Amino acid sequence: MANSPAGESVISRVVRLMDAFDRQVPSMSLSELARRASLPLTTAHRLVEELVRHGLIERASDGELRMGLRLWELAARGSRALTLREIALPFMEDVQAAVHQLTTLAVLNSGTVLYVERLSAPDAALDAAHVAQRMPIHATSSGLVLLAYSPAWLQEEVLAGPLEKVTEETITDPPTIRKHLAEIRRRGYAALPGIGVLEWTGIAVPVFGAGGAVAAALNATVRREEANVPLTVPALLTAAHGISRALGAENRSAGSTRP
Amino acid sequence: MANSPAGESVISRVVRLMDAFDRQVPSMSLSELARRASLPLTTAHRLVEELVRHGLIERASDGELRMGLRLWELAARGSRALTLREIALPFMEDVQAAVHQLTTLAVLNSGTVLYVERLSAPDAALDAAHVAQRMPIHATSSGLVLLAYSPAWLQEEVLAGPLEKVTEETITDPPTIRKHLAEIRRRGYAALPGIGVLEWTGIAVPVFGAGGAVAAALNATVRREEANVPLTVPALLTAAHGISRALGAENRSAGSTRP
Repeated sequence: MANSPAGESVISRVVRLMDAFDRQVPSMSLSELARRASLPLTTAHRLVEELVRHGLIERASDGELRMGLRLWELAARGSRALTLREIALPFMEDVQAAVHQLTTLAVLNSGTVLYVERLSAPDAALDAAHVAQRMPIHATSSGLVLLAYSPAWLQEEVLAGPLEKVTEETITDPPTIRKHLAEIRRRGYAALPGIGVLEWTGIAVPVFGAGGAVAAALNATVRREEANVPLTVPALLTAAHGISRALGAENRSAGSTRP
Repeated sequence: MANSPAGESVISRVVRLMDAFDRQVPSMSLSELARRASLPLTTAHRLVEELVRHGLIERASDGELRMGLRLWELAARGSRALTLREIALPFMEDVQAAVHQLTTLAVLNSGTVLYVERLSAPDAALDAAHVAQRMPIHATSSGLVLLAYSPAWLQEEVLAGPLEKVTEETITDPPTIRKHLAEIRRRGYAALPGIGVLEWTGIAVPVFGAGGAVAAALNATVRREEANVPLTVPALLTAAHGISRALGAENRSAGSTRP
């Protein structure tokens, strides 16, 4: 592996360049990119030139650099996220048709919640839970559902913290979170207002994969004053059951499960 | 840039590793990966170890390697494909609700049609036009729509070939394709049976972006004996107009345009 004088490999530096792009800043100049990636301009220039040749970074007509479609293609073609969302999408549409709410699908990845799909009206007001964005596990209903059905060692790892206070209502006290996890397993869903975004309530249920382990969380996010949990949960459970079946899970519905 | 003895850079070799994964083969052993990427086993091993450390490749519980969620995340977060599909998805749902057909969104990229979104029933029979897959431009209605509204130099580049005969009905004769392109611009849509998959008809309309250039093709794909063009085109045009508006296009509808 070829390393820079600082001992960092080409792959590390490429990852830092890729990481500089996000939803808020999808395109930028080379010098801005070098700055955001903390790389010397000459290094960034050399790497970017080659990434552009491979289509992994693109140069827009105004000269700005942005993530290349080729990278998305490579990543999407073989990815679990895509398979999961392809299977889940029709069921998510059913949920949206039934409850008319922002609907998301999330997985656990590297100690955080990663959103892999989102369905919403074009003018959806919630600027969170976007596709490919992450949230702390304890600060979302989806995360707590995923954690509730995860092995005990993983629960303890997450509860060992740090547990950031994302809003004033985020629960950061491990014993209280443990009580919520038990309650979620008992009822088969989570519905916690304000823990991730103050004005919103997430309602989430588990999706199971082949082998019976939890594979994803299916969520509807609603303004907290409009949250109708008794109406929303059955729609989510129905769709989650369909997704689990399509993923090859045995007949394990959240409501009948006591892990 | 650090090159292998054969003069190939780390980035090139990483791209070849990534390219080895696809829809048909989403996971494989290290030796299979090395073989598919045409890399020596030791080189593949060294690169894969580092890609695994960064989460760009994942090792499943059975030891098989697969594309990492982290790569998908990096690629998706800053990508045009994601922005376009987020904007288009609600409108595509409207089309599907109206015409109950497989609905796709495609862009031109590197001289091919690249599918960025697809909505279908879970049991959709057509095994083509999957997300992140490509097709030759002249062998799809979406590609011909994208080409019809592209600059003349790009049309000539594509028509200069090679024009592969994907099915026995693929049109590969440049003068005939030119006639179709003129017809598509005149009518505002393409509806060509069997040119990409023999039993299916693609019906496609253009989506325009800010600045008025064609940004994508919106398509419904139907079994050719069930194709109802007069019913499908208005649904597609309505949704395409909505997507174009959301993308910031001026009021340029395909039907009123004579580029």
